[in-house]
Amino acid sequence: MFHNPVSIETRVTRLLQIRYPIIQAGMIWASGWKLATAVSKAGGLGLIGAGSMSPALLTEHILKARIVWQGPLGVNIPLMRRDADELVKASLDNGIRIVFTSAGNPGKFTPLLHDHGCIVAHVVPSLKLALKAAERGVDLIVGEGFEAGGHNGYEEIPTFPLIPRLVDHIELPILAAGGIRDGRGMVAAMALGAEGVQVGTRFACTFESSVSENYRKSVLESGEPSTVLTLKELSPTRMLAGSFSKRSIEMTKTGASKEAVEHFLGHGRAKAGTFLGDTEEGYMEAGEIAGDIRSIVSAEEVISTMISEFISVINRLTLLGNSAINI
Amino acid sequence: MFHNPVSIETRVTRLLQIRYPIIQAGMIWASGWKLATAVSKAGGLGLIGAGSMSPALLTEHILKARIVWQGPLGVNIPLMRRDADELVKASLDNGIRIVFTSAGNPGKFTPLLHDHGCIVAHVVPSLKLALKAAERGVDLIVGEGFEAGGHNGYEEIPTFPLIPRLVDHIELPILAAGGIRDGRGMVAAMALGAEGVQVGTRFACTFESSVSENYRKSVLESGEPSTVLTLKELSPTRMLAGSFSKRSIEMTKTGASKEAVEHFLGHGRAKAGTFLGDTEEGYMEAGEIAGDIRSIVSAEEVISTMISEFISVINRLTLLGNSAINI
Repeated sequence: MFHNPVSIETRVTRLLQIRYPIIQAGMIWASGWKLATAVSKAGGLGLIGAGSMSPALLTEHILKARIVWQGPLGVNIPLMRRDADELVKASLDNGIRIVFTSAGNPGKFTPLLHDHGCIVAHVVPSLKLALKAAERGVDLIVGEGFEAGGHNGYEEIPTFPLIPRLVDHIELPILAAGGIRDGRGMVAAMALGAEGVQVGTRFACTFESSVSENYRKSVLESGEPSTVLTLKELSPTRMLAGSFSKRSIEMTKTGASKEAVEHFLGHGRAKAGTFLGDTEEGYMEAGEIAGDIRSIVSAEEVISTMISEFISVINRLTLLGNSAINI
Repeated sequence: MFHNPVSIETRVTRLLQIRYPIIQAGMIWASGWKLATAVSKAGGLGLIGAGSMSPALLTEHILKARIVWQGPLGVNIPLMRRDADELVKASLDNGIRIVFTSAGNPGKFTPLLHDHGCIVAHVVPSLKLALKAAERGVDLIVGEGFEAGGHNGYEEIPTFPLIPRLVDHIELPILAAGGIRDGRGMVAAMALGAEGVQVGTRFACTFESSVSENYRKSVLESGEPSTVLTLKELSPTRMLAGSFSKRSIEMTKTGASKEAVEHFLGHGRAKAGTFLGDTEEGYMEAGEIAGDIRSIVSAEEVISTMISEFISVINRLTLLGNSAINI
């Protein structure tokens, strides 16, 4: 399985017992058991994205995953879901011991998850929320920048300023998310102090993800900026720029009320876009690096390429550092 | 002068004939001759920010600079200025041979500047504008992310996705700007493929900058997010979050017209804030890393600290790369 005969050790890999500090983000309508197991098999950590699943469907995905892979595997649970407790129960009952929580109060389930021997990571867009999560006892913090796809923070802090800010104030290992698509980004994140990366859109554009063909096509053809952060009145969401995002931005510009945006949004828009491929009536969550993805590959190739780039970028920097010292 | 007995060589340092690939951004009301010469003396490149100067005042600053420093020194000229041609003339007439242009069409003055033996850099917020600048013959591109202070792009692309995008499509050396305040950020930018960094806010908060004491105080006390990107209807501008930014955001939320924002803005708001320290009637341009600046130091200390951090971060990454290869 491992074309790249190496491992990269940080507190993150030791805690999660994985080979590389690369976490595949739990993405709604994109990361089911197929993608998550492909990533974990290749030495990263795959997360089943429970955000678009009922507790029963989540159970099904975990059971299917376990047939092909018995190693480290996680679930992402958005805490704003009303039935978050049932998603937590489905995860625990089916042997999941790594849980990434996002979009809500991490205090709610962390003690329960710890009682069951889980490692708990929480995704935050700011230092303020990171400090809160650390207080509530989570084991890992994922700092997610403004450039990240999907659900986003109100603070609009990009990855570059966010990560050192978290590292300077928090003892826990920090994972960087947002804007990372290759080995260069991985080294950059770790230069800023992160001990691993969470990668979304690059993994959504693999053979194993569950996105529609039209999602893949839309990413490959996306321009610049490839995405916009919209729906700020309700819950800021980064999506591919297109017909749907234009309509939603128009509402903001004309000062539409929260209720009007809520009504416009309705239900099932993310499914319609990402899963069913409808670019008119649905939206496709993606990070700004969508504009730089120009091929669909396997999850394994994403990881092996990242690792060989990681090593060659560090070699390049080492030479630069040595030349600096020797002069 | 050099406490750190090293140099770091990239195409940027060779082109500009400087010791370190650290450029101090030309900042209105902040970077006059004192700051620019302090930075250049310490081995970086100082830029006199002509954006807030008349051609006569620019001449005065260049002449004062030349008394204390005869080495590399540049000027930043915002091309949207109606008298940009006079600023160019003042620069050339007084021996400036490094010009950073921004906010406008780089084709306008690049041939003239080249005729006079100048190195021309142009600041862009997107690949689209970078390609245009490269076509017009500039020598260097500064990619400035969404997190950068002051004048900003409509595309809202942060530094993390922007830099590799530029590097992948443009042969010219790329400088990274936005979110960089220390050696970690410098290494991160270079991991992403940049050959140097442009640093603004960290240099605005030095003894040598011309900002008001209240600007320094406001940065030191800033919260999170420390800044907001506002005035999007006219010309997106990142400024410290505060009374003025709140009023301007309120206008956007209520769907104010471009004319209404123009009228609200009036004239002299940047001077009132940054230079005179009035946080009610003026605004203070700053990047999001303002929230992480907790001390005022000399420009020389900014640079020497960045360089020693640069080397220690590379050493840390080298160990990580070696351990990866040896397993």
